[in-house]
Amino acid sequence: MVRRLKRYHPPGTSPGTLPETGVRASFELFTYGSKGVSKTSAPSVAAALALPRERGWLRITGLDNRAVAELGKRLGVHPLVLEDILNPGQRPKAETHASYLFFVVDVPALTEVGLEEVQVSLLVFSDLVVSVEEKPNPFFATVEKRLALGSGRLFQFGSDYLAYALVDAAVDHFFPVLEKLGERLEGMEEVLLQQHDQILPQLHQLRRDLLRLRRSLWPLREAVGALLREESPLLSPEVRVFVRDVQDHVLYLLDILESYRETAASLLELYLSTVAQRTNEVMKVLTVIGTIFLPLTFIVGVYGMNFQHMPELAWPWAYPALWAIMVVLALGMLRAFRRRGWL
Amino acid sequence: MVRRLKRYHPPGTSPGTLPETGVRASFELFTYGSKGVSKTSAPSVAAALALPRERGWLRITGLDNRAVAELGKRLGVHPLVLEDILNPGQRPKAETHASYLFFVVDVPALTEVGLEEVQVSLLVFSDLVVSVEEKPNPFFATVEKRLALGSGRLFQFGSDYLAYALVDAAVDHFFPVLEKLGERLEGMEEVLLQQHDQILPQLHQLRRDLLRLRRSLWPLREAVGALLREESPLLSPEVRVFVRDVQDHVLYLLDILESYRETAASLLELYLSTVAQRTNEVMKVLTVIGTIFLPLTFIVGVYGMNFQHMPELAWPWAYPALWAIMVVLALGMLRAFRRRGWL
Amino acid sequence: MVRRLKRYHPPGTSPGTLPETGVRASFELFTYGSKGVSKTSAPSVAAALALPRERGWLRITGLDNRAVAELGKRLGVHPLVLEDILNPGQRPKAETHASYLFFVVDVPALTEVGLEEVQVSLLVFSDLVVSVEEKPNPFFATVEKRLALGSGRLFQFGSDYLAYALVDAAVDHFFPVLEKLGERLEGMEEVLLQQHDQILPQLHQLRRDLLRLRRSLWPLREAVGALLREESPLLSPEVRVFVRDVQDHVLYLLDILESYRETAASLLELYLSTVAQRTNEVMKVLTVIGTIFLPLTFIVGVYGMNFQHMPELAWPWAYPALWAIMVVLALGMLRAFRRRGWL
Amino acid sequence: MVRRLKRYHPPGTSPGTLPETGVRASFELFTYGSKGVSKTSAPSVAAALALPRERGWLRITGLDNRAVAELGKRLGVHPLVLEDILNPGQRPKAETHASYLFFVVDVPALTEVGLEEVQVSLLVFSDLVVSVEEKPNPFFATVEKRLALGSGRLFQFGSDYLAYALVDAAVDHFFPVLEKLGERLEGMEEVLLQQHDQILPQLHQLRRDLLRLRRSLWPLREAVGALLREESPLLSPEVRVFVRDVQDHVLYLLDILESYRETAASLLELYLSTVAQRTNEVMKVLTVIGTIFLPLTFIVGVYGMNFQHMPELAWPWAYPALWAIMVVLALGMLRAFRRRGWL
Amino acid sequence: MVRRLKRYHPPGTSPGTLPETGVRASFELFTYGSKGVSKTSAPSVAAALALPRERGWLRITGLDNRAVAELGKRLGVHPLVLEDILNPGQRPKAETHASYLFFVVDVPALTEVGLEEVQVSLLVFSDLVVSVEEKPNPFFATVEKRLALGSGRLFQFGSDYLAYALVDAAVDHFFPVLEKLGERLEGMEEVLLQQHDQILPQLHQLRRDLLRLRRSLWPLREAVGALLREESPLLSPEVRVFVRDVQDHVLYLLDILESYRETAASLLELYLSTVAQRTNEVMKVLTVIGTIFLPLTFIVGVYGMNFQHMPELAWPWAYPALWAIMVVLALGMLRAFRRRGWL
Repeated sequence: MVRRLKRYHPPGTSPGTLPETGVRASFELFTYGSKGVSKTSAPSVAAALALPRERGWLRITGLDNRAVAELGKRLGVHPLVLEDILNPGQRPKAETHASYLFFVVDVPALTEVGLEEVQVSLLVFSDLVVSVEEKPNPFFATVEKRLALGSGRLFQFGSDYLAYALVDAAVDHFFPVLEKLGERLEGMEEVLLQQHDQILPQLHQLRRDLLRLRRSLWPLREAVGALLREESPLLSPEVRVFVRDVQDHVLYLLDILESYRETAASLLELYLSTVAQRTNEVMKVLTVIGTIFLPLTFIVGVYGMNFQHMPELAWPWAYPALWAIMVVLALGMLRAFRRRGWL
Repeated sequence: MVRRLKRYHPPGTSPGTLPETGVRASFELFTYGSKGVSKTSAPSVAAALALPRERGWLRITGLDNRAVAELGKRLGVHPLVLEDILNPGQRPKAETHASYLFFVVDVPALTEVGLEEVQVSLLVFSDLVVSVEEKPNPFFATVEKRLALGSGRLFQFGSDYLAYALVDAAVDHFFPVLEKLGERLEGMEEVLLQQHDQILPQLHQLRRDLLRLRRSLWPLREAVGALLREESPLLSPEVRVFVRDVQDHVLYLLDILESYRETAASLLELYLSTVAQRTNEVMKVLTVIGTIFLPLTFIVGVYGMNFQHMPELAWPWAYPALWAIMVVLALGMLRAFRRRGWL
Repeated sequence: MVRRLKRYHPPGTSPGTLPETGVRASFELFTYGSKGVSKTSAPSVAAALALPRERGWLRITGLDNRAVAELGKRLGVHPLVLEDILNPGQRPKAETHASYLFFVVDVPALTEVGLEEVQVSLLVFSDLVVSVEEKPNPFFATVEKRLALGSGRLFQFGSDYLAYALVDAAVDHFFPVLEKLGERLEGMEEVLLQQHDQILPQLHQLRRDLLRLRRSLWPLREAVGALLREESPLLSPEVRVFVRDVQDHVLYLLDILESYRETAASLLELYLSTVAQRTNEVMKVLTVIGTIFLPLTFIVGVYGMNFQHMPELAWPWAYPALWAIMVVLALGMLRAFRRRGWL
Repeated sequence: MVRRLKRYHPPGTSPGTLPETGVRASFELFTYGSKGVSKTSAPSVAAALALPRERGWLRITGLDNRAVAELGKRLGVHPLVLEDILNPGQRPKAETHASYLFFVVDVPALTEVGLEEVQVSLLVFSDLVVSVEEKPNPFFATVEKRLALGSGRLFQFGSDYLAYALVDAAVDHFFPVLEKLGERLEGMEEVLLQQHDQILPQLHQLRRDLLRLRRSLWPLREAVGALLREESPLLSPEVRVFVRDVQDHVLYLLDILESYRETAASLLELYLSTVAQRTNEVMKVLTVIGTIFLPLTFIVGVYGMNFQHMPELAWPWAYPALWAIMVVLALGMLRAFRRRGWL
Repeated sequence: MVRRLKRYHPPGTSPGTLPETGVRASFELFTYGSKGVSKTSAPSVAAALALPRERGWLRITGLDNRAVAELGKRLGVHPLVLEDILNPGQRPKAETHASYLFFVVDVPALTEVGLEEVQVSLLVFSDLVVSVEEKPNPFFATVEKRLALGSGRLFQFGSDYLAYALVDAAVDHFFPVLEKLGERLEGMEEVLLQQHDQILPQLHQLRRDLLRLRRSLWPLREAVGALLREESPLLSPEVRVFVRDVQDHVLYLLDILESYRETAASLLELYLSTVAQRTNEVMKVLTVIGTIFLPLTFIVGVYGMNFQHMPELAWPWAYPALWAIMVVLALGMLRAFRRRGWL
């Protein structure tokens, strides 16, 4: 995670120059309207846009610089927007342009190697939505299904509703990720209260994942807010209500996220306190043992000396008497420890 | 707590699609006005709404998707609002719609297994309040009682006052919960200053409970504020004064909550400091004992050796002299410790 | 402190219902104006308000529900305001009503058992100020004295100036409390740098006291700010300047408070660091002693064994040679410790 | 630092009553304009104001209550402003009055005993600036010199520019103080990385000094901002540009201050980590020594026992065999430690 | 880093007085427009400005007070702006003046000795951009190259676009610096999880570098925001879109920076926890060894005593019995440790 730093236009080129990505995208055009729905794979942007349509959704998968350039030329998209589409790792944002809205969102996916992010860009025109997705992903399967039904709100409202449905589907993918992280957190909590050996690196990793999600969610919150604040004719009042619902979801996710972060921090403190307490207990045991046996060992050492003139050695009751003294000493110390609360 | 993550519309369905909850609700209609008060149990929303009324309160207990759908159809409620009503774990919020206000609040209840939350949704029409409660609960018993009296402000003002009274009753249930947590905090404080063995998991739990309450209270503050800022004819100026009072309560609860959170954090620091200090004291005891007896044991070990040529062994005053040396050594070390403040 | 949680209207009663406090208040009316000043004790609110006056200050000491109800009836005060007056532990606030201003402030007093708060409520009418004080207190003695002089600004301006003078006198009582806490903080600082045994519980207590003061001061800042922002004819421009001065005082107190809180936090860190360092030093001593004497004790143990075939035992120079070896060993280790910086 | 708490009007007096300070001030009047510059010492405020002038700067050194009262009477200054001038330890602030601006700033000076603050108050009239300085100080020497030159912007602009020049000179005195603290911080950093015995109390002191500077700078930032926001004819647009420059300086100082505070906090953490690591290393040494020699000492103790029936004692190769066993044991343990990374 | 504190006008001089820097700058004038591009080295500002041009970029390298004064005189720049240009270490800022915009930015460069900053000032006139760079640097090489191409947006838009291109190139240099710091952070993370000896000073250094970058980036964010908020005819709507892109970059850099700071803090906590845990493990080993062998050593010491009357010594089975007892004792203790989870 630390490493993935988006690099804008490479030095030496003008801003808005599209980088050579070496990726070839796939193109699907969904046309829908009063005459029903159809889905067509197209070999290029040009071919897709040439197809007749009432309303359409052009789905581009893969960051293909040639396709994006073509898109820009045919639909009149600003070069900086095209550049943003092609550079993954964008800060989520919403921009209102004269003839279209631009929306970028980073959707997390928990893979085996950790948290991964897929950038999804949306261009919303009055009769067309173009989505550019960084990689193949399952985010929009549900929208496709609803479109295939041939009826419902998607057919009732304009392309702004389709765009909303896509953003909503993307935001919905934060939930299982956060849920999984929450489960991990809970798992650690249980582990911590019993044993606690391997928890630290995991906890650190979890905190980094939360930090990363946060970096996706905070700007997303701003982006949705900006969309709602600005007056664009491309966003109808009816769909605004739905966008507000997305905003609610994002706020809710942020609430959960922040509370996970606090819980994780509190868990680390709990861990530190537990270690400190265990060290303290270990020390007590060592101290009790040391304090009892070091003096006793000294005493028996005294009578192990080989001086020729040690009168005690000859006394017949010396040995049992010494035992008695030592037992009394040990008991006295045990009592002192008990009084201090060490036993 | 970590786990309970509200899931919005299940993937594959359109937003605003109501989930199948499998719950059957109970329905009570309170009608009141110039002709007095009556309370009727109804088998369904349709039956309840068909009853004649001057002003009314329809109380629905249980998240019943069929009842909520019926409600939406008959009263013209937005599908997203219906969805929010059915999904427990909502972020508290207030929404102003054309013909009704929508208010959600999460009310905490301290049960034996911990903190539990009950979602209460309110729909406020000009002559009707609909409350949908997640589970049977004691929150509104007091409002029922006041309604049964047949007079008072509830009869003087419109349905906005009834709604206020319900929200107020709900907010009032935060007080005993917070009070109980405060008592636990104080209990821990006392325990900590004497002994401190089992306090850590409890403190961690308490902090989590406070975090959870916070997640209910912060958005509630925003929600009440939003209600007061927006100009809805459904909220009369007279009732606004009362709503401002609810806002005061929420602010007060937040003040207390934040100060509990700080006290809990300070308590953990106190705990850590205490453990560090005790470890230090244990170490001192061990060090004093070790420093005195390790050298002495070495000395007596020397004269326990069996070399044939050890002239000291034959000296008649060697044994008492050695004792004298050892006593002087021990006293010297004790004095050194006292000077360092270790005894 | 943790426990004192204001409870609003008891469950089952309508908001604005005054609780039965069981307290009987005392009443004093100060009338003043062009004809001079007079102070009269009255048996009841009704009696006090019946007295002729040009301008007046009705001082009620004790939270007497019957008196407050009487006050509400005669002066047209909103039931929620009356309820706030009777419930001690209010969040400080200012409210602008049509015919009066309402102001609540919590004034701290350092008693022997700790920090205690006294709630003072003010109702400011155009020709009358009513103060309701939770308990007998010395806060307003200075205002009484200035009134007794029979001249000065109190006679020049309206009742808003009297109200200002009362709030100002109340805010002035934060200064000695904060000064005392500052002295305690400084005392602890000195103690900490020398010895540090009993400091922890005191520091914790101090932090709690600061937290508590903060809970009084932050809302007070808001309250004064709200008063200045709102346009009430009850507050004349001349007096506004004075109220701004009170605001300055509150901001100043908050500055000091926050810096005390930071100093207290820094003190705890200093304490923890000191304990950690002392533990480290204790450990060093133990390690030095252990590292020197454990090997030596082993060596002398070797020659204390009773094997029949131990050739060294018979060598005449073995004993002095062993001493030489042991001295060299000990000196070598001492040198190693010195190089590590342990001595 | 903890102790210095400004006390407003003493209890029992009206706000705006000037305290008896017992200080006699010195007075200097600088008159300047088209006829050049002259500097005159005057015995009193009255005498100084009676002198003829085109534009003037009355410099009062010492908080002299009689002089300030005189000033108030002759120039029509509000009593609360006079009170603020006389009470050192004010929160920096700017106030716009009808005929004058009032500005207070606390300028730090590093003396041998620590950080000390000098309060400087400015009253800016259309043709006169009055400065009241708590103590003799070097802050304004540079302005005097520039005035003595008889030309430059001071002669071009009105008294607002002179006031600006004074504030600017005062703010300039924060730089060397902050620079000195930065040097101390850097010194500590170097000390810490080598040895670290006496650093804690110094670091604590430094943090307190930074806290104190902060208490001067934050309100100063607000004060300058307030001055720029408010529309006073006393501040000409040309001089506004210069005041904005002072604001830049203050923002810059605050940036530096905050980064010092963070560096100091990070330094403390570094210190704590270092101590923890050293304790860990000390413990390792002790553990290695203990783990090797405690078992060996036990073994040799076994063969130091005096039982009559111990067959090993008579075996001729027992002694060398035991040595071999002990060496193997010690080497094995050393190897185990090396694998654990303890050596 | 701690030391570099910008000093404004030296005491004793008027603000806006330019310091004697003792540096001689180099001058390059790029003229471009419909007739193509040309680049000329000039010996002075006067010479450069005398050259004919359609649109131009005057690039000054080196903080040369005479050149800057000349610049101010010929182009009518405010003295305070000139002073800011000459004082390196400025807070990044943007100022809108009547005939020009002023922009300062601090660009970081990672050198071998650490992070270094180069100040770049821009004056944007309607047909001329003047850049003053503190030191020779590679920041603008890419802009020069694009200019040399003789076509593109630089020729399409006015001098505001050139200024944008320069700022954009400067901001682009933050990316590799942050990337390098991110790599260092990741490197430390890996080191920490294996061994951890030399990480502390490096981590401290990294945190300081991040703090420093932050001091450059936060005001830069404000500066760009201020530029966008203010309505200057010098910034055309077309170029505004590009400036908004720079703002995006800065926000993105800040996001990354803050997440690095949190990761670094979390890393330190991880380090502290790891040390605490290792100390705990070391202690356990010592305690286990001590607890087993101290009692055993005492026992064998007992039978090493030389009392004449010790009946056990004569018993034939005493020696093997003692061994049995000791083995049982040791095993019992091992079991107790296992139950406590210490082995």
